[in-house]
Amino acid sequence: MAWWKVSAARRDVNPDLVSERERPSFNVETLTNILDGGVEETRIRRAVVSLVIKDPVFSREYIYFKTRFERYEGAIRNSLHMQKKIKEMGWDENGREAEYIYRALNGEIGFNTHIVFMKTIKALGTDEQIAKWMPLAMDYKILGSYAQTELGHGTYLRGLETTATFDPTTQEFIIDTPQITATKWWPGDLGKTSTHTMVLAQLYSNGQNYGMHPFIVQIRSLKDHSPLPGISVGDIGPKMAFENVDNGYLIMRNIRIPKENMLSRYSQVLPDGSYVKSGSDKINYFSMIAVRVSILREEVLEALMKACTISVRYSAVRRQSELKPGDREPKILDYQTQQHKLVPLVASCYAIDFTIKYVNTFYNNVFNEIRMENFNSLPELHALTAGMKAFATEICSNGVEVCRKACGGHGYSLYSGLPSLYTKVTASCTYEGENTVLHLQVARFLVKCFAAAQSGTPLPTSTAYLSSPSASGCQATTPVDFLNPEVYLKAYECRAYRLTASAARKLQNLVQSGVEQYLAWNSSSVELVKASIAHSHFLTVKIFISALNSLPDQPDVKAVLKRLCDLYALHGIVTSAGDFLQHGYLSGKQLDVVITAYLGLLAELRKDAVLLVDAFDFTDEQLLSALGMYDGNVYHSLLEWALKNPENKKANPVFHTYLKPYLQSNSSKL
Amino acid sequence: MAWWKVSAARRDVNPDLVSERERPSFNVETLTNILDGGVEETRIRRAVVSLVIKDPVFSREYIYFKTRFERYEGAIRNSLHMQKKIKEMGWDENGREAEYIYRALNGEIGFNTHIVFMKTIKALGTDEQIAKWMPLAMDYKILGSYAQTELGHGTYLRGLETTATFDPTTQEFIIDTPQITATKWWPGDLGKTSTHTMVLAQLYSNGQNYGMHPFIVQIRSLKDHSPLPGISVGDIGPKMAFENVDNGYLIMRNIRIPKENMLSRYSQVLPDGSYVKSGSDKINYFSMIAVRVSILREEVLEALMKACTISVRYSAVRRQSELKPGDREPKILDYQTQQHKLVPLVASCYAIDFTIKYVNTFYNNVFNEIRMENFNSLPELHALTAGMKAFATEICSNGVEVCRKACGGHGYSLYSGLPSLYTKVTASCTYEGENTVLHLQVARFLVKCFAAAQSGTPLPTSTAYLSSPSASGCQATTPVDFLNPEVYLKAYECRAYRLTASAARKLQNLVQSGVEQYLAWNSSSVELVKASIAHSHFLTVKIFISALNSLPDQPDVKAVLKRLCDLYALHGIVTSAGDFLQHGYLSGKQLDVVITAYLGLLAELRKDAVLLVDAFDFTDEQLLSALGMYDGNVYHSLLEWALKNPENKKANPVFHTYLKPYLQSNSSKL
Repeated sequence: MAWWKVSAARRDVNPDLVSERERPSFNVETLTNILDGGVEETRIRRAVVSLVIKDPVFSREYIYFKTRFERYEGAIRNSLHMQKKIKEMGWDENGREAEYIYRALNGEIGFNTHIVFMKTIKALGTDEQIAKWMPLAMDYKILGSYAQTELGHGTYLRGLETTATFDPTTQEFIIDTPQITATKWWPGDLGKTSTHTMVLAQLYSNGQNYGMHPFIVQIRSLKDHSPLPGISVGDIGPKMAFENVDNGYLIMRNIRIPKENMLSRYSQVLPDGSYVKSGSDKINYFSMIAVRVSILREEVLEALMKACTISVRYSAVRRQSELKPGDREPKILDYQTQQHKLVPLVASCYAIDFTIKYVNTFYNNVFNEIRMENFNSLPELHALTAGMKAFATEICSNGVEVCRKACGGHGYSLYSGLPSLYTKVTASCTYEGENTVLHLQVARFLVKCFAAAQSGTPLPTSTAYLSSPSASGCQATTPVDFLNPEVYLKAYECRAYRLTASAARKLQNLVQSGVEQYLAWNSSSVELVKASIAHSHFLTVKIFISALNSLPDQPDVKAVLKRLCDLYALHGIVTSAGDFLQHGYLSGKQLDVVITAYLGLLAELRKDAVLLVDAFDFTDEQLLSALGMYDGNVYHSLLEWALKNPENKKANPVFHTYLKPYLQSNSSKL
Repeated sequence: MAWWKVSAARRDVNPDLVSERERPSFNVETLTNILDGGVEETRIRRAVVSLVIKDPVFSREYIYFKTRFERYEGAIRNSLHMQKKIKEMGWDENGREAEYIYRALNGEIGFNTHIVFMKTIKALGTDEQIAKWMPLAMDYKILGSYAQTELGHGTYLRGLETTATFDPTTQEFIIDTPQITATKWWPGDLGKTSTHTMVLAQLYSNGQNYGMHPFIVQIRSLKDHSPLPGISVGDIGPKMAFENVDNGYLIMRNIRIPKENMLSRYSQVLPDGSYVKSGSDKINYFSMIAVRVSILREEVLEALMKACTISVRYSAVRRQSELKPGDREPKILDYQTQQHKLVPLVASCYAIDFTIKYVNTFYNNVFNEIRMENFNSLPELHALTAGMKAFATEICSNGVEVCRKACGGHGYSLYSGLPSLYTKVTASCTYEGENTVLHLQVARFLVKCFAAAQSGTPLPTSTAYLSSPSASGCQATTPVDFLNPEVYLKAYECRAYRLTASAARKLQNLVQSGVEQYLAWNSSSVELVKASIAHSHFLTVKIFISALNSLPDQPDVKAVLKRLCDLYALHGIVTSAGDFLQHGYLSGKQLDVVITAYLGLLAELRKDAVLLVDAFDFTDEQLLSALGMYDGNVYHSLLEWALKNPENKKANPVFHTYLKPYLQSNSSKL
């Protein structure tokens, strides 16, 4: 058969990938199990993924040809079908299987803030409110959303301007959008779907402002879905990605809702308009942290793992230019510059995976403490999760784009899967806490800890190093010295200490010289952000090392993970060299040695690269990439997908409208 | 009138922007003239832009709601209309007005490779070939494209696999796509438009391969536009951007074309199949350089300038969080972290603008030399343009994304204009020479120059510094010292020298120790790329300083440009600190001083920021950004555009298909 008759039949694995998988230095399945958290977890995940892939209702084929509306429609269909499946299979809606389905569907589902709507009711509603609203929402008899962000206000919740004014004469709240900046803007599910929404509004009663509270407001008719009187609601329009989500706007003109629609577990308004707080709502603060923790694995790391899989496999198949004169064109993965782009990102996937596991454990411990009314660890948990959210989203989104560019021209085609991964994951730098804002919150915690250390107060584990600075510089002299985790961990610790100490001292000096506190803080904020990044970077290295130490005794897997840990750490030193040199912890000569050690590791890990991404265990259906398929038949896939393009199946209307009048049309052949 | 009745009437300028424009420290118009290259140029540019904006055929409104096909159709319409306008106005098709139209249309035109098709005929065709084909192409009686890149081959031209085999019996060439990797892939205008294409193919005659040559191949009927027999052609599918371009694929199965269709100015095949070269085609090499030079201003810098305009204006209007307790929410531009993100990018716009002007002058000089058959400066021109292409595309595309993220959530909406700027400009890192490949070409030039310097051979201007290394470290001690251009230029020079010297020596040592040359090169390539970046960075600082020195005597404009030049240079030292510290040119203490000087400049330039982007002089129609309009009414624009969204003007079909069956539909109000 001629080559251009592309066959959809099962194809042989490209010999260039076969050779990468021969003689593995470690057991790939073992590594997959470690990533999943156990053999049994791998089994369950695979079962769920395979169920999703085989189910025709869930089909996500041709996603790159779909319009925004078709993506939205598909997401709604997927969500409702997913609920059915979960019930059929008897799974827990908030359990791991639901998470695996979500990942298997690449997040192409809707009703995400419908879930937040329900969680808010459960957390902040009274028992009566829960009893009234939850069954309706659970069965989709009403469709909720969560309307917090406004046109003029995102990060700074206290600045929100929507008002809820209590009217004691009717026992109602009047919900109003008093000016344009108060227009609700961005909430998902609001644009086209939800019938009800949880409005976050400034509570006013008897002329006094009691701050932000949540109110349930119906916005669309349950009969015909038309907006209720006084409501303007719609889709905010196209975004960089998330075509499946109907992010919306909402204007409310003096809408009246019954008093009972204010969630009142922790605070309520009495019939006479007086305001009563009951108990602490600190637990509420916790839900924001929970979301940050959950997106790290499901959205953020997932994207980098996929991008690494695609770009590493493609780099083992793509041959380009000349290395040895006269030889066949080499695999681009054999170029040192390509290894330098990709292999540190593969290492970052593992570093961040272990970090997320650590954060999850920490989170669960604090959650249990809080249930015992012990809030001591909340500040540390907040700093840890805020820092890791900012650190990991930055690494992962920049990393996905590096992977994309490393695939050259084909990385620019949507068929590579990479552009969509990037345009989606980059949003995570902004949502759930803008990264710079988060880093400054972490820095505030670090500065406090630093001051506490000065006065001899004991520090929480993650910042304990701030009380015991290293006096001397690094003693290592050979490349092998730098493959010692104690050596590089100490370097990261010193960097984080010195950057924190120097920012904290600057702040102190400014204040002592008479500068107002808020100006001093602002004038130090570039350096404070740097300190926060260095702190999170240090923690990831520390966590990677201790994960390595606590692995079961499997020498092959341990050895490759040790190489990855070394590479992760040394790469960070090479790329942020200034921080390590500035205060003299490393000398220029030592940096040369680090570079030598780093380049040596790159060459070693090049051999493991394909297997290290195979261990992420994505199916072709999850990757949706012509470049990243397991069988490596990239050119056949690209051509096959181009031929499937519906636009190629019809004549070009522009020929008749614009081109024909110009063409030399008296001959079909010139 | 209630605020939600948004008025399309002319609005007042937002007071937050008015205050930024009061009491300017310099004359904005003078700066605009400098950027344009003279008062007269500003006048012409504005006249062209205003003509384009007023012309209803050129309308680019609602671009964010258009499908790929509508974007393509619009581009074809724009192009044909632009040709008409150019003829009407009597402008030069390759002149400045055409460039201004292109920029005014944000590149939303087609037929880009139709132009390359013509340029190739003019450069490589015989007089008869030019006489035959040019008039047809000029009048769009045939539509050309340029088919070079293949599925399996991009950067490495020698690797292309399409064949053109001479058949002396019929005096024809047989053009063939012998295997899947030889499929032409990516050429613009090929997917849906062109009737003819310039096929780059391996010439075979009498069983011998004579390398790459260009052949004119008709691919579609002029009568009905259907593909000719033996041709498979179509669109390659959706990409990250460039929705207006029909990038295509092309498979040719033993297509026969007349012998005369091989462009034969410099080489031809005689009737008996013998191959004759006549004259040098070095000039051809030049056209690749010309394209690289032209995209820098039209595509690459343009994108960063627009992104800076949008994000700086928005940052002067957006108010968020709390700086001084109790005060009104401050403009986000008042946060040091925001200034740190944006102001260095504004400075980069100016640095790159001056650099492009320098590169253009250099290019024109070499062009004139080459016409005199003097090819001496070609290697330097190649290194200069390759380096600047790689350097500027990286700065500009990363910079656009920084601007986008700095606008928070709204930067993620297409209405901000920023996502489209990014997804488009990032392609420039790959097309017209992949950046890593280009940096390695520059490095090869640097290593050669370094070796020449060792043996006392004089060096070209741009690398002269490689023959006179600085022996001592930097002597500066105060922040003011570091505002001396001689001081920071020397620092950049030493950095570039030391990185080149260290990579060249490593290479030399490896070869002397018996490593094969090609392996030694590959093992040094990460460091070689670093040297190339440092070299281009040094040149931009040098060019900025000398542009400053040659400005006419206008103290206000000079003063602000001096601040920008200082900021550009010091920002580079702060962000690449490791390079400056590693070999001891700067000490850690000096770096602290540089940081102090840098942060001081940030605060000073914050006052000029809005005016510095106003000077770029974009109209609202060019920016297509709800966040970046001159009047700063960002929230009204966002809401206005959302209301225009066609999807908001119809009911949601998903209500009937999926939602209604679930809803508690016996009551319209719960």
